[in-house]
Amino acid sequence: MKAHLIFTGTELLLGQIVNTNSQYLARKLADLGIDLYSMVTVGDNRRRIAEAIKSAKGKSELVIINGGLGPTEDDVTREALAEALGVELKENLQALEVSSRFFKRRGIEMPQANLKQGLVPEGGLVLDNPIGTAPGILLVQGEVTYVLLPGPPGELKLMFENEVIPYLKRTYHMGGQIKSRVLKVVGLGEPAVEEKVKDLIGSLNPTLAPTVNRGEVHLRMTAKSDDPAQNEVLLNEMERKVRERLNDYIFGVDDCTLEEAIGQELTKLKYTIAVAESCTGGLLAHRLTNVPGSSAYVQLGAVTYANRWKTRLLHVGPEVLAAHGAVSPETAQAMAVGIRELTGADITIGITGIAGPGGGSSAKPVGLVYIGLNYRGKVEVFKHEFSGDRESIKYRSSQAALTHLWQRLKSYQ
Amino acid sequence: MKAHLIFTGTELLLGQIVNTNSQYLARKLADLGIDLYSMVTVGDNRRRIAEAIKSAKGKSELVIINGGLGPTEDDVTREALAEALGVELKENLQALEVSSRFFKRRGIEMPQANLKQGLVPEGGLVLDNPIGTAPGILLVQGEVTYVLLPGPPGELKLMFENEVIPYLKRTYHMGGQIKSRVLKVVGLGEPAVEEKVKDLIGSLNPTLAPTVNRGEVHLRMTAKSDDPAQNEVLLNEMERKVRERLNDYIFGVDDCTLEEAIGQELTKLKYTIAVAESCTGGLLAHRLTNVPGSSAYVQLGAVTYANRWKTRLLHVGPEVLAAHGAVSPETAQAMAVGIRELTGADITIGITGIAGPGGGSSAKPVGLVYIGLNYRGKVEVFKHEFSGDRESIKYRSSQAALTHLWQRLKSYQ
Repeated sequence: MKAHLIFTGTELLLGQIVNTNSQYLARKLADLGIDLYSMVTVGDNRRRIAEAIKSAKGKSELVIINGGLGPTEDDVTREALAEALGVELKENLQALEVSSRFFKRRGIEMPQANLKQGLVPEGGLVLDNPIGTAPGILLVQGEVTYVLLPGPPGELKLMFENEVIPYLKRTYHMGGQIKSRVLKVVGLGEPAVEEKVKDLIGSLNPTLAPTVNRGEVHLRMTAKSDDPAQNEVLLNEMERKVRERLNDYIFGVDDCTLEEAIGQELTKLKYTIAVAESCTGGLLAHRLTNVPGSSAYVQLGAVTYANRWKTRLLHVGPEVLAAHGAVSPETAQAMAVGIRELTGADITIGITGIAGPGGGSSAKPVGLVYIGLNYRGKVEVFKHEFSGDRESIKYRSSQAALTHLWQRLKSYQ
Repeated sequence: MKAHLIFTGTELLLGQIVNTNSQYLARKLADLGIDLYSMVTVGDNRRRIAEAIKSAKGKSELVIINGGLGPTEDDVTREALAEALGVELKENLQALEVSSRFFKRRGIEMPQANLKQGLVPEGGLVLDNPIGTAPGILLVQGEVTYVLLPGPPGELKLMFENEVIPYLKRTYHMGGQIKSRVLKVVGLGEPAVEEKVKDLIGSLNPTLAPTVNRGEVHLRMTAKSDDPAQNEVLLNEMERKVRERLNDYIFGVDDCTLEEAIGQELTKLKYTIAVAESCTGGLLAHRLTNVPGSSAYVQLGAVTYANRWKTRLLHVGPEVLAAHGAVSPETAQAMAVGIRELTGADITIGITGIAGPGGGSSAKPVGLVYIGLNYRGKVEVFKHEFSGDRESIKYRSSQAALTHLWQRLKSYQ
């Protein structure tokens, strides 16, 4: 089965937003074993969207059109599909229900404009949208299945998982032809990872491909076979080979994030954690608490941005700050110790650094970051020098802190 | 002038990486006043790339093809262009020089495979790549200019800035014809915003187009004229009209974020801020501290995830927690009061809610969030019910808190 994706949105053509939906859908199709032929982006223009739909016809059996299902005049995907397929738009009570339910729940009257979301090209099925106003649409004409999904990523994902995948599996008896699995690595750069699995990268089935993703290396294994069970065998065998060489660096598989891997370890060990952040400004606590159930182990996060809070809350000695400065190994250590004394958490982290763009000097440049890790009373301090803008220095600092923590958690077992 | 972008890369069709080059090029073209007609992504397949090039011919005068210029067998963009235009690939010393210089600088011998990067379709000009091995190519045939650029974002950007923009400006006498400005709105939904500027949305020059972006409505005004000064006049006039109706909701222009707008107000008023977060887990502090210079006004962030820290650090009475629960207006209020008593900051915020997916009940469902805002001793509490997954509930909560804060800052002036 071949697929073609059409993204609509003048904001995409003007470069106002990054299209993350394209990666999401591409990956999901790959997992389903559907061959993605091409992707195209067009503006919010009925004629051009209709043209894109028509030109996809000969090439693919599945055409997914993403965006343009809102209530405004710009939103013309419904109309474009009807035009391209030569059918009428009709009022559809089920579609209207999705939209009106959204407003009912909020106790707001539905604006007139949203009535438009109750229109469906004749022959189309309505796909429920549990969190937004725009229903999706699925329409089969001839050999081709057309799927319309809304642009907001949260709505797209939920509807693709809940509605589209089950439909495709049911209708096309899919599953198992292509199966991917990703092994996620931290603490080693891509060249070093590649060096260790060089020979495996040449493998044809499963294939093995490394990609770099914000401080992590992801090793994607992809197996092809008619038999889903055989794919599992192939992937297990490849995973075993990769783990022989890289096991100490692999923190998770597939969708597992580094913070989730840490959460699993903390839960297993029944350890609690507290963090004291300066340059990361709350990002480390934010990432730790992105994990469902993290309230079981996250005790406290203290964003001691101002120096006096390092002293008042964490008891970092004023003499330490005076002698070594707020960005120093001594301060990072004192922060990690101070937050542990305050909270009694098993593990604590102190981060201090210069996120920039201002505040750097030749002795302490922008990007200089110290991370203190207090593991049940044993403190280590790590020094990093990151490049990039403020947000990326904050992110890399949080990633480094999580990496050190994960490595420590593993090595003490 | 109309443009069309072609991205090549099977890794894009498999969803292994996000295509950030598309946003970069789209934005640059918009700035140059070039109308981007559409974008397409195809795999590393010579025939399909050639097809995509051919089909762009009738529609655009500028065709940029990105990716597939490396030394491996997958890299077939040079070949595809030659095929599509019916010309031969020839060895080009200037192209070879780009590639060999790269290795010479590193003191490495150039691998045989890289010889391929010295091939250029007949009639093509070589674009220098100062940081990578792949030279770019620019080729004019008939009315169409074809530009080939390498995939790595750093190389693409440098070469587009250094080589392509000067060429386009020189050749097509461009600059100034199209100018955009974005007015950013919070506190009003898209339908309500649209209702207020309905008549302006029909305007032809400048145009006005609303888009929704994570709790904000962005109104993009785009003016076209031969005279850059005239564009400014047109945009100023449209901005004035929009502000007549929406001024109380417009927090910023163009790249200004909500947290930056808040930072500007706090700086102007010489106010400090401290936040106490439960369900947002540090995200609010993270966003506030994403602003360069925020250390001047951010005093302290306390992520009091565990109840006992709400009591110990913020002095939220155990009887409040017992009587109303951690997720209650009373607790949000007590958190906002407690963090102010602790820090003496002019403005404090307390957030408590249920980010999910677990922890909800019929009385207190997932997504229920209370925000306490303490503005120099005057406390208000806001109730929200958000939908979505954990991360989006966290984000929406932080966005709501920033929105309330910004509105309060504006209304007290």
